[in-house]
Amino acid sequence: MTVIQSVDPSNGRVVEDVAQPTGDEQMNEVVRRAESAGRAYEKGGRPLRTAVLRAVADGLEAACAEIVALAVRETALSEARLRGELTRTVHQARLFADVVEEGSFLEATIDHAGETPMGPGPDLRRMLVPIGPVAVFGAGNFPLAFSVPGGDTVSALAAGCSVVLKAHESHPGLSLLTFKVITEAVAAARGPEGLVGMVFGREAGAALVAHPAVKAVGFTGSLTGGQALLDIINARPEPIPFYGELASLNPVIVTEGAVKARGPQIAAGLLKSVVGSGGQLCTKPGVALVPAGTAGDALVAEMARLIRQEPAVTLLNSHIAAFYEKGTAYLDETAGVSRTAEGGASSTTGFSVTPRLFEAAAESVSHRVFDECFGPTVVVVRFQPGQIEALVQALPGSLTGTIHAQGAEEETVEYLTELLRPKAGRLLYDGFPTGVLVSWAQHHGGPWPSTNTLHTSVGPHAVRRFLRPVTWQNAPVAVLPEELRDMYTAIPRRIDGWLVLPG
Amino acid sequence: MTVIQSVDPSNGRVVEDVAQPTGDEQMNEVVRRAESAGRAYEKGGRPLRTAVLRAVADGLEAACAEIVALAVRETALSEARLRGELTRTVHQARLFADVVEEGSFLEATIDHAGETPMGPGPDLRRMLVPIGPVAVFGAGNFPLAFSVPGGDTVSALAAGCSVVLKAHESHPGLSLLTFKVITEAVAAARGPEGLVGMVFGREAGAALVAHPAVKAVGFTGSLTGGQALLDIINARPEPIPFYGELASLNPVIVTEGAVKARGPQIAAGLLKSVVGSGGQLCTKPGVALVPAGTAGDALVAEMARLIRQEPAVTLLNSHIAAFYEKGTAYLDETAGVSRTAEGGASSTTGFSVTPRLFEAAAESVSHRVFDECFGPTVVVVRFQPGQIEALVQALPGSLTGTIHAQGAEEETVEYLTELLRPKAGRLLYDGFPTGVLVSWAQHHGGPWPSTNTLHTSVGPHAVRRFLRPVTWQNAPVAVLPEELRDMYTAIPRRIDGWLVLPG
Repeated sequence: MTVIQSVDPSNGRVVEDVAQPTGDEQMNEVVRRAESAGRAYEKGGRPLRTAVLRAVADGLEAACAEIVALAVRETALSEARLRGELTRTVHQARLFADVVEEGSFLEATIDHAGETPMGPGPDLRRMLVPIGPVAVFGAGNFPLAFSVPGGDTVSALAAGCSVVLKAHESHPGLSLLTFKVITEAVAAARGPEGLVGMVFGREAGAALVAHPAVKAVGFTGSLTGGQALLDIINARPEPIPFYGELASLNPVIVTEGAVKARGPQIAAGLLKSVVGSGGQLCTKPGVALVPAGTAGDALVAEMARLIRQEPAVTLLNSHIAAFYEKGTAYLDETAGVSRTAEGGASSTTGFSVTPRLFEAAAESVSHRVFDECFGPTVVVVRFQPGQIEALVQALPGSLTGTIHAQGAEEETVEYLTELLRPKAGRLLYDGFPTGVLVSWAQHHGGPWPSTNTLHTSVGPHAVRRFLRPVTWQNAPVAVLPEELRDMYTAIPRRIDGWLVLPG
Repeated sequence: MTVIQSVDPSNGRVVEDVAQPTGDEQMNEVVRRAESAGRAYEKGGRPLRTAVLRAVADGLEAACAEIVALAVRETALSEARLRGELTRTVHQARLFADVVEEGSFLEATIDHAGETPMGPGPDLRRMLVPIGPVAVFGAGNFPLAFSVPGGDTVSALAAGCSVVLKAHESHPGLSLLTFKVITEAVAAARGPEGLVGMVFGREAGAALVAHPAVKAVGFTGSLTGGQALLDIINARPEPIPFYGELASLNPVIVTEGAVKARGPQIAAGLLKSVVGSGGQLCTKPGVALVPAGTAGDALVAEMARLIRQEPAVTLLNSHIAAFYEKGTAYLDETAGVSRTAEGGASSTTGFSVTPRLFEAAAESVSHRVFDECFGPTVVVVRFQPGQIEALVQALPGSLTGTIHAQGAEEETVEYLTELLRPKAGRLLYDGFPTGVLVSWAQHHGGPWPSTNTLHTSVGPHAVRRFLRPVTWQNAPVAVLPEELRDMYTAIPRRIDGWLVLPG
């Protein structure tokens, strides 16, 4: 087992040793503490959850300068991007506090005893309760919003669960710093010690997923990494839910009308979406379907022109840079696919790569074109009228699907929407899929292989992943959670079949 | 492949050939039709769903006499029980129609475009949409409420999904009859042809679960059967949700106070719950924890007296009868477990068995006592003060957990509730777990191995299993479902963060 080191992606050099890999005994101790802290945390009720979440938000805000500086150094993402990500991370912690306060996520439901078509019915009261300790595996590409202080962590805390994090190998220093911020926030809010724990190293991560006390896993990462954890879960005596966000192609379809009306604008927007954050976003468009013909040619030519002006970008770590080279080489070797243009030369040090634009004709498209290639690249597939249906049907499931059309093409838009809906969790019109707003109506999830779940990992509904229903039948009032007592009216509840808003 | 035959459990004789096993080509055709019918069904909107569900309820009611007579002949369950089950089945189809009409299950959510802490946000609209064709594997022990016309089928139809049923081998004639009733009901409600399909035979069932067009599986049956289907799902290129209701021990805990105050009453209620429907209920109590000492002795003596008066019962099929004999023999061979009493002698023909009462001391309890034994038997575990915590912690997950206590034991009840909650989906007080009311606050689900899901298979919330979220971003009104349009106010929706009731 080797020490966990912080590496500077811009030159590939080790900056410091951050931690020793967590051993078995220590990992057990972290989980054991999380288990017992989780029980105490639940007893604190919703007020403790909101206090902890708001303290986490405040703590992140207070440590902003230190966090962003370390994040820049460990990820090579831009300061502006990381400042924005921190704002989002703070906002989502506060939003989850609001969600906990609002209380409808509990799905509190009361059916009083009485006559039913099946005879006399008992008093039944149902509510969602915390599932238990949650293991969180954050993502490298969102070192804040999807990592230690990210959506999985705060949604699990909102659900009333304790959390054990696996520190991310690609930003271990930042993992440790944000973990400290959270730990202090929990203490400041008088949350139980050990409510959030952290382990280092792949072996400790694997052992965490196998641990009997862990009751759910949140994961954002590669299909391969997710599959490895799923295999561990499938081998557990007691299976647990695994919420994986894995690989997403995020197709963008451009109609005949749109390409004619605003091809160059679409080219510019698309390119920006492809190369932003080094193309290392889970919603980066990996394929664009563009009509054959002169207007489509012009769109591609404009993309080529723009990409040639793009500088080389530094990717997050050596694996991602290597996979990018491998993935684009694979496209080069794919029959019918050609490399149309490439950005500025990469520097010779660090994990630097060039943005690359590929093109293929619809008739030569195989699954090889539809494998996700993480990083600043996109394949433009050129289609003839009549080829679009088969193309869309061949697409893998994605987090998003985008349609660019013009006003008069209403029927086309309806038709494409119907085709695309089975393939994506979020449908966008005349926009670009990168940039995921954290709000009530957001859905960040989609058909396999983009996720393996029917849930979102962004926005208030993400809390549902870490809750399980319990029904109390003819229970004495003393054992009922306060939200299920008759006199409690502070949250929306369903009573005898009718939804009742707070009184 | 052998012909599917209807057998009379009372004598083990074949009454008739019902169907040939469905071949691959025919199975593919059934799924293909369900896929295309599902699309048409969704286009019919919520009014078509309610019409279909109510027509199914009406059809079942109209065919009541024929259905119950055939059910009695194929299952050997009593006519009264099966009439009650039909009433419940009809009620649940109508309840799901009401659920569809009420509309909050769609979780319709609108966030209008506007300023956010992260800058300007787009217009986002989220709603749950049908997941696609659902494969349903019903249970032998509820040939109506959990089989062809049962909860999985009607909740999938409520979700807007088409359904492909696997006919149950143990009641194939009834499967066919109720399938015909459903098919006619769908036609009467002007639903699309092929909306509900059916296949016969284990091979067709396995192929169904592997079929790429099938998007979810509902299963009620044994742990072994469920595991076999899960293995098929894990081998699919695209995994799909599997909602399995598997094995449940349903512990009943009797406190010192309760056993002293009303031991004989508890004995009578418990025995009734154990032997009802031949002990073939998923919520049958398989283990009762009863204090050591004279009051507990009296409770066990009363159970023994009562069970000796119980006649032999005919189980559903030869497998269940064989497993019952094997399971009770396994208890006989288990150190520390003794067979205390047995019911009237079994007849020599058919799948007849005797009810059996077992007893064990807490200190000799191993996992062998906690394996589910389907059929009319229960193990009473006698505990000393101080042994209860370890006993409850050793219990496997169950659909239900029951506590019998006396008024003054408030602290004990709170303590036992906290111990038992991680082990069960429904907590009952001073009652018995058999008899599951179909209502909004019901939860029929629980920790592994009772189910592998966080969802219920009974009651309105069961619909959530067959839905997936979709978010539309900046979508033209024409492509939005009507429930997501601004002017629509007929259902509860969350608008800009606030829950709004129908106006």
